[in-house]
Amino acid sequence: MKHAISPLRSEDFPEWYQQVVKAADLAENSSVRGCMVIKPWGYGIWEKMQRDLDQKFKETGVSNAYFPLFIPLSYMEKEAEHVEGFAKECAVVTHHRLKKGSDGGLIPDGELEEPLIVRPTSEMIIGASFSKWIESYRDLPLLINQWANVVRWEMRPRILLRTAEFLWQEGHTAHATKEEALSKAKEMHAIYQQFAEESLALPVIAGEKSEGERFPGAVTTFTLESMMQDRKALQGCTSHFLGQNFSKGSDITFRNEKGEEEHAWTTSWGATTRFIGALVMVHADDDGLRLPPRMAPSHIVILPIIHKEEARHRVMNYAQKVKEQLTQITYHGEKISVIIDDRDLRGGEKSWNWIKKGIPMRIEIGPRDIDDDKLCIRKRTSGHKDMEKQSPDELAETLVAQLDEMQNTLYKEALKNMQEHMHEIDTEEEFEKFFTKGEGGFALTPFAGDVAMEKEIQQRFSVTVRCIPDNLGEGICPFTKKKGKRVVFAKSY
Amino acid sequence: MKHAISPLRSEDFPEWYQQVVKAADLAENSSVRGCMVIKPWGYGIWEKMQRDLDQKFKETGVSNAYFPLFIPLSYMEKEAEHVEGFAKECAVVTHHRLKKGSDGGLIPDGELEEPLIVRPTSEMIIGASFSKWIESYRDLPLLINQWANVVRWEMRPRILLRTAEFLWQEGHTAHATKEEALSKAKEMHAIYQQFAEESLALPVIAGEKSEGERFPGAVTTFTLESMMQDRKALQGCTSHFLGQNFSKGSDITFRNEKGEEEHAWTTSWGATTRFIGALVMVHADDDGLRLPPRMAPSHIVILPIIHKEEARHRVMNYAQKVKEQLTQITYHGEKISVIIDDRDLRGGEKSWNWIKKGIPMRIEIGPRDIDDDKLCIRKRTSGHKDMEKQSPDELAETLVAQLDEMQNTLYKEALKNMQEHMHEIDTEEEFEKFFTKGEGGFALTPFAGDVAMEKEIQQRFSVTVRCIPDNLGEGICPFTKKKGKRVVFAKSY
Repeated sequence: MKHAISPLRSEDFPEWYQQVVKAADLAENSSVRGCMVIKPWGYGIWEKMQRDLDQKFKETGVSNAYFPLFIPLSYMEKEAEHVEGFAKECAVVTHHRLKKGSDGGLIPDGELEEPLIVRPTSEMIIGASFSKWIESYRDLPLLINQWANVVRWEMRPRILLRTAEFLWQEGHTAHATKEEALSKAKEMHAIYQQFAEESLALPVIAGEKSEGERFPGAVTTFTLESMMQDRKALQGCTSHFLGQNFSKGSDITFRNEKGEEEHAWTTSWGATTRFIGALVMVHADDDGLRLPPRMAPSHIVILPIIHKEEARHRVMNYAQKVKEQLTQITYHGEKISVIIDDRDLRGGEKSWNWIKKGIPMRIEIGPRDIDDDKLCIRKRTSGHKDMEKQSPDELAETLVAQLDEMQNTLYKEALKNMQEHMHEIDTEEEFEKFFTKGEGGFALTPFAGDVAMEKEIQQRFSVTVRCIPDNLGEGICPFTKKKGKRVVFAKSY
Repeated sequence: MKHAISPLRSEDFPEWYQQVVKAADLAENSSVRGCMVIKPWGYGIWEKMQRDLDQKFKETGVSNAYFPLFIPLSYMEKEAEHVEGFAKECAVVTHHRLKKGSDGGLIPDGELEEPLIVRPTSEMIIGASFSKWIESYRDLPLLINQWANVVRWEMRPRILLRTAEFLWQEGHTAHATKEEALSKAKEMHAIYQQFAEESLALPVIAGEKSEGERFPGAVTTFTLESMMQDRKALQGCTSHFLGQNFSKGSDITFRNEKGEEEHAWTTSWGATTRFIGALVMVHADDDGLRLPPRMAPSHIVILPIIHKEEARHRVMNYAQKVKEQLTQITYHGEKISVIIDDRDLRGGEKSWNWIKKGIPMRIEIGPRDIDDDKLCIRKRTSGHKDMEKQSPDELAETLVAQLDEMQNTLYKEALKNMQEHMHEIDTEEEFEKFFTKGEGGFALTPFAGDVAMEKEIQQRFSVTVRCIPDNLGEGICPFTKKKGKRVVFAKSY
């Protein structure tokens, strides 16, 4: 059987991924090293993600704001671990104008007194504002989010997954007590989990990061890990409990109810455009993308079938009427979006175009369908030959349920993949076999080692501790022979 | 009579502006030179502007996408006038990491082979994509918009009006014919005018820019000019017809229906966060901001009046019920937003807080109001002593009309200011008097000079041609004694 994407997933997963991104018209590399262009279909997915998360954040009392792109070099030095984590991969602005060089070409001019870093994350610059805004316990909690671009000079960029510039949201909160800050970090982690599972149809393993994988400067990092179809892990959103590390660096203090000065307790949490890449690696098949209906920029494409020119008017009128009927329907808070694709292309080419883009539902409408008042409906989660006939009224009445069922199908398939490749592994021998000879996946293994041991395991097996869930129990760590919590080991993106 | 803002508008307009921005909690300067922090109330206004414009754009077939923050230096050189316009004020990235210097501090490291410019605007980088995306006339028109941050190294930054970094949208379109591109530039100009007048309550003068004031590289720039309360002009959104200048620079070609290669015709158009500053300078008074209801992050604040602790429960319950009733109402496509401000502050302080922020409506609720089932309503566009009593049901039934009336009041007041200070001036003597001895404003004066003459007039009177409307007729230019179109001269931001 022929497929639209070459190579197949089973032949060359990384190349298959690139080809799906291209065929679905999501994004492309730009001529600026490591920077991508997010094309309209890809950006449409991001807009869906934004609206969903933004609403969830606002319901918890978070407000959006915007902070400078540039961070003075001296700010970066305020938290030692943090600067260590980002110094090796940041864009540095050193000049503020251009002039003609001796060869007539432009060269940088107007050197800045203090170089500026293009934000890799904004703890430092937002901390400077928090330090000014917070005076007393009455100003707490302070709950802020920003939607922004950030830059990390990735040495091995991969489109949508690891790029020099990417888009994200970063939430930053400050609290009067440790308990409240920790509970906020956990609350946002739970919101991300709900977003991943319900909106993106991504099954996740939730838990803490190990010491070696924590956000630079964080006390605790909560993470979501998903299994891709190549059985590697992708880190989704993270939520960090920062303790007083950053409030000490940025001097964020408040007067408590007794009138004493205290350092605030802070959190930060973020979700990025890499989730678009996760949708591809989890849900796409050998014919291209399959979009969870809740994240689809459009839910339905109508393909008018016009063999004879004299039928055009009738077919287009009917298609328009169906579109008007369906776009009245609300699906998870937003109106159903329907595209009528009347481009002058062969029908097969047009259909495949939308299959590769992963639109949930395709409806063909020709003169005979109008005579029967039946639509030919094809779903991206069913086989391409599977066609259902439904009248416009039947479809309208059951559309929400049909889309929800497709959403659920994608979730269940992804969950099955994860469950089939997630095993309790308790000996070093099995562990080695799993990752070097077997198919790999998530090894649930007791671990009691330190950062050095994590590094060693990474060097030997190319795997890391992805996540420490709190519901996997304990066991004897095969590497240290000590008792330890069962954790998730996996290769990762 | 005492006012909340000091100095008054009449005493020191620039300082009054700074104080209103501060008192309304819109934005503040950051420690990064020329870069601002947009605070939640200011960002809430920006979100309203974004949603309004974004919907208008999408209705015309425009799709959002995202392009890189960085532009390779060599790209900047592709259009001579364009690079000339931006070379003097751009942030240049020259390094991609930091290292420890000899004194232990961080210094830039990893010099880039080619410096990168932080985008001041994206014609060049988007042009590179358009060049790849467009092959045939079937790919046209291409209608793209991006919401992004841009950086122009302003020498005299002023918060929200002229900052090194600001937020904006930039639309970029490519067309097969000159006529179609020109008509798209005009269409977007008309959308901006509708947005300014209806959504922002800003009266505008629409027209073309003179040669001296055009966007660098544009053939025609369409602009909207508004009069601030100090009678200076503020340029609102601009829409540029770029001819084939940029398509030649970026090699954007297409095969026409005859199979011949042609250069496309392009446009670009943008609106920025400076509109938040315009709202302040047009609508604020000596007590702070007055927000047009359509751009208010929240429409109504409920101030519970609780003198005795035992009344708290009853008052808060009633307030909550009123809030629930009002938030059911849709106002221009979005739900009414109501805040219950139960902070532990003195009532007067709380009221003034919201007056300064410019929230359209304040509702006080105390035990006696509940007994009467009447709300004490105060509107920001009425005098502070003016209080209206309405039952919750009366208010709910007429809220949309009441808000629209307030919106209209703001528009009419701004229009009156503009009309009172806009005069036909036909002699050099009157012109000089108007701008150097009189109150100033918009001088509608015939003009037939060239760029050099524009410069000379600017040096003599500190005014420029703001706009060439096409409905003001012709006359004899007092500077050249030749026949010319009547244009708008004014001092400007």
